[in-house]
Amino acid sequence: MTASTDGDADCAARVELIAVPGVPVVEPGDDLAAVIAAAAAAVDLTLRAGDVVVVPSKVVARAEGRFVDLATVDPGPRAAELAALTGKDPRLVELVLRESTAVSRAGRGALIVQHRLGFVTADAGIDQSNAAPPAAVAARGVGPWALLLPADPDASAARLRAGLEAAAGVAPAIVISDSFGRPFRVGTVGCAVGVAGLPPLRDHRGRSDLFGRPLERTVTALADQLAAAADLVAGQAGEGRAAVVVRGVRIHEGVEAGAAALYRQPAEDLYL
Amino acid sequence: MTASTDGDADCAARVELIAVPGVPVVEPGDDLAAVIAAAAAAVDLTLRAGDVVVVPSKVVARAEGRFVDLATVDPGPRAAELAALTGKDPRLVELVLRESTAVSRAGRGALIVQHRLGFVTADAGIDQSNAAPPAAVAARGVGPWALLLPADPDASAARLRAGLEAAAGVAPAIVISDSFGRPFRVGTVGCAVGVAGLPPLRDHRGRSDLFGRPLERTVTALADQLAAAADLVAGQAGEGRAAVVVRGVRIHEGVEAGAAALYRQPAEDLYL
Repeated sequence: MTASTDGDADCAARVELIAVPGVPVVEPGDDLAAVIAAAAAAVDLTLRAGDVVVVPSKVVARAEGRFVDLATVDPGPRAAELAALTGKDPRLVELVLRESTAVSRAGRGALIVQHRLGFVTADAGIDQSNAAPPAAVAARGVGPWALLLPADPDASAARLRAGLEAAAGVAPAIVISDSFGRPFRVGTVGCAVGVAGLPPLRDHRGRSDLFGRPLERTVTALADQLAAAADLVAGQAGEGRAAVVVRGVRIHEGVEAGAAALYRQPAEDLYL
Repeated sequence: MTASTDGDADCAARVELIAVPGVPVVEPGDDLAAVIAAAAAAVDLTLRAGDVVVVPSKVVARAEGRFVDLATVDPGPRAAELAALTGKDPRLVELVLRESTAVSRAGRGALIVQHRLGFVTADAGIDQSNAAPPAAVAARGVGPWALLLPADPDASAARLRAGLEAAAGVAPAIVISDSFGRPFRVGTVGCAVGVAGLPPLRDHRGRSDLFGRPLERTVTALADQLAAAADLVAGQAGEGRAAVVVRGVRIHEGVEAGAAALYRQPAEDLYL
């Protein structure tokens, strides 16, 4: 074997994923930053400079009151057609279409769309698990209920960042994550739908490998890696742990852009 | 807000990602388990029961001597045609075709195939970064060199697991990862191509959400989440850190299968 090397200076040698325990079920109007800051403080978890806080989109959406009573949704003809094809509730399909710019694929049990925010996902990210609204909201409708994604997740991330800075004295980077299915592979992984305070992509182009050969496939999706890593500690079922602190990732120089930097342009996508 | 909950019992509250530092550039014939065990021992990192060790496919492939001298590859007509379309080296394309069962998409700069192992990826996972062989191998050829994926990554993972158990006294779970591009999203993330000692999928179906509603999209790709998480500490450029220990993930009951459990069957894939 040849000489040892110290690895990539962009990468930390140790990263911690810390679930913030005891975050309650969030309800519309809750100050999410205050809720997370209080839950962290309750276990003596103090945010540090360089921390990244990953929060499921669903928690943000609940705080923003993105509940829709399906009884109030009137499906159009396109929704009825796609509902027949997919076997889904026509009212849900109508909501999906309203949240989308294009249908990518539809089949039995599957409706994959390009969301108006630019990413491609099943059912426009609209969820019916853990979508039950609190009593005050439920009393205004018949249901069943669905929960839309946050209206502007990058803006939600920026607000959460500012709120946590006000509460904790440091501004963590924020990733708002959602569970995405994928072509080719079974099972969901967390992907970023909102980003604040860190470049969503890590660009190694122009650097060389150990042997001096320029690196090729070397743009890595940092924000998606963070979202997927947070899955390892964030409970999907209970979601009592609403936030995950990722500590020790070296945040590199780069373009601080919104999550849209992660979305391939349709003209450059071989699969859309 | 309503009552707090303790989150998903399947998930740990804290997970550590620990890069094993100082792992040297691996060469054909090296005993990878011994190399990793020695590098870990050198920094007093002792493997524990429940640890998962994530190793890049490239490191495994180097140890297995999967170097190919492109000067020895004679491109067939199909390779020549695809090389013209993609702008890639016809010899590389020929290798890609030999490693694949089907071409999924081909375009300028892009050749996406279904690998004979079942996953879909660019260039059949064949890499030319960090693919330079050691002197003894290089002396037998002209180059340039390419590095194929391990021949049977699940078997490689099982061997590594047994070797680490022999060296360290505990058998960690193993994930062999590769950097995959993705439809719809920019940038690569780590995905599992070999698995030993853990169920690659985590299945929440049949469980209920906080409100008693059955969970829907609830198969999560644990092995892929582990591979993506390891990206946060594993250097892509230097790759001096060849292994990442993931500590604290609760390995749940489930089917211990190979990585193929992660690959969608072609008949069930809307995008192939």
